[in-house]
Amino acid sequence: MIKVVLIGGGEVAWNLAQVFLEKPEIELVQVYNRSLNAISFFQNKTSITSNLNALEKNADIYIVAISDNAISEFSQKLNLDNKLVVHTSGGMDMNELNSNSRKGVFYLLQSFSKNKSVNLSKVPICIEAQNKKDLNLLRKLANSISENCYEIDSLQRKKLHVAAVFVNNFVNHMYYIGKEICDENEIPFQILEPLILETVNKLKELSPFEAQTGPARRHDSKTIATHLELLNENQQNIYTLLSNSIAKTYGEKL
Amino acid sequence: MIKVVLIGGGEVAWNLAQVFLEKPEIELVQVYNRSLNAISFFQNKTSITSNLNALEKNADIYIVAISDNAISEFSQKLNLDNKLVVHTSGGMDMNELNSNSRKGVFYLLQSFSKNKSVNLSKVPICIEAQNKKDLNLLRKLANSISENCYEIDSLQRKKLHVAAVFVNNFVNHMYYIGKEICDENEIPFQILEPLILETVNKLKELSPFEAQTGPARRHDSKTIATHLELLNENQQNIYTLLSNSIAKTYGEKL
Repeated sequence: MIKVVLIGGGEVAWNLAQVFLEKPEIELVQVYNRSLNAISFFQNKTSITSNLNALEKNADIYIVAISDNAISEFSQKLNLDNKLVVHTSGGMDMNELNSNSRKGVFYLLQSFSKNKSVNLSKVPICIEAQNKKDLNLLRKLANSISENCYEIDSLQRKKLHVAAVFVNNFVNHMYYIGKEICDENEIPFQILEPLILETVNKLKELSPFEAQTGPARRHDSKTIATHLELLNENQQNIYTLLSNSIAKTYGEKL
Repeated sequence: MIKVVLIGGGEVAWNLAQVFLEKPEIELVQVYNRSLNAISFFQNKTSITSNLNALEKNADIYIVAISDNAISEFSQKLNLDNKLVVHTSGGMDMNELNSNSRKGVFYLLQSFSKNKSVNLSKVPICIEAQNKKDLNLLRKLANSISENCYEIDSLQRKKLHVAAVFVNNFVNHMYYIGKEICDENEIPFQILEPLILETVNKLKELSPFEAQTGPARRHDSKTIATHLELLNENQQNIYTLLSNSIAKTYGEKL
């Protein structure tokens, strides 16, 4: 049985609390948040508190699932000498934790949106710790909720976090612009759905380098010029920069 | 029975020929290509030719599936007065067809890569014609191979084609950069797969506007600055432009 205290009231904390409560091998002994409101959902399921002095002292792992910029200052206030305290941030160094505790990271490589719960069983969990024993404990915790656990150090994790911005945040913004163009022209956005799915499905058989198609890949400057005429200024800037980047990838300038 | 002549030896022609041969309600009477080599696969299945003068004269629909820039010049050479001739281009006006034939468009909204065959049954087919009778014939042909048929005029189709560049070509380039960052740091690209799938799956429940997450959406300039330090110049330019575009979408400059 792994005893866990969860700190935070955001999407990551909420998803973790839910799954910890389901697993017999994990005991969620407490959820802390500065406001009880955000965690009142858990009040009949475990101990909840907004008082740091009332933090349970006998847990195996303390998971600090709060916003990146708050980790350093908050962790100073924890009085958990020699306990294992981990944060859940993709972009922050393990040493952002600022205390006399043993340190680690428990990063879920997934994007959590409000009003959309995520099945964690496939979510990659990236773990890091200062020693093997703690790493093994984090691996045990990770394996109990997900099939995919990776040992990733702080620098790799930061790079991975940036890569995630490209394949998630920026991809979603491409969908946004695609929908924007459809909406302006009374075209149902759903018409693009099979293409969107095929773009992802291709990755199972081809690398992104192999899978690339389109006017920039073909160095088809006539089509590119026609496309630019149909776009607004912001869309044009993005279209031009990405087309140039694609063309460069395949060895020629446009 | 709809009699079809297919013109072209590229991916679109190849995928269409394959599916036409399977359908009892379609008779693929001939495949034309300027070189027989690219269409020799079909020689025991239908008539093939590289001689325009030997083109079958009695088909119901002639599908010109050749590269955009060749459509105008090639269609001039067709001697098919009063026959229905359609092209398959997303970016070209119907009137790019340059002949005394009846004109139309039969555009498959999908990205075709070499070495990756596509199931056409979900692929949206966008049709356009000069009169209702031809439009009905194209709809019948479309319905026999796909569940998704849309009537889309030339201007809408051009806009749709640009939208497709964003959600397909540019999305794939985001995957490429994500993999580039992983490769440089000895991180397996597959670790990003669940995130990539979740980004797409979200579209079933949320609009791209609602689904957006990440530092640019949060106006988190500290994380953005950290990310920029980890990227090369080309990646930095893309990261900055897209982050600014996301920030503007949510009403603030970064």
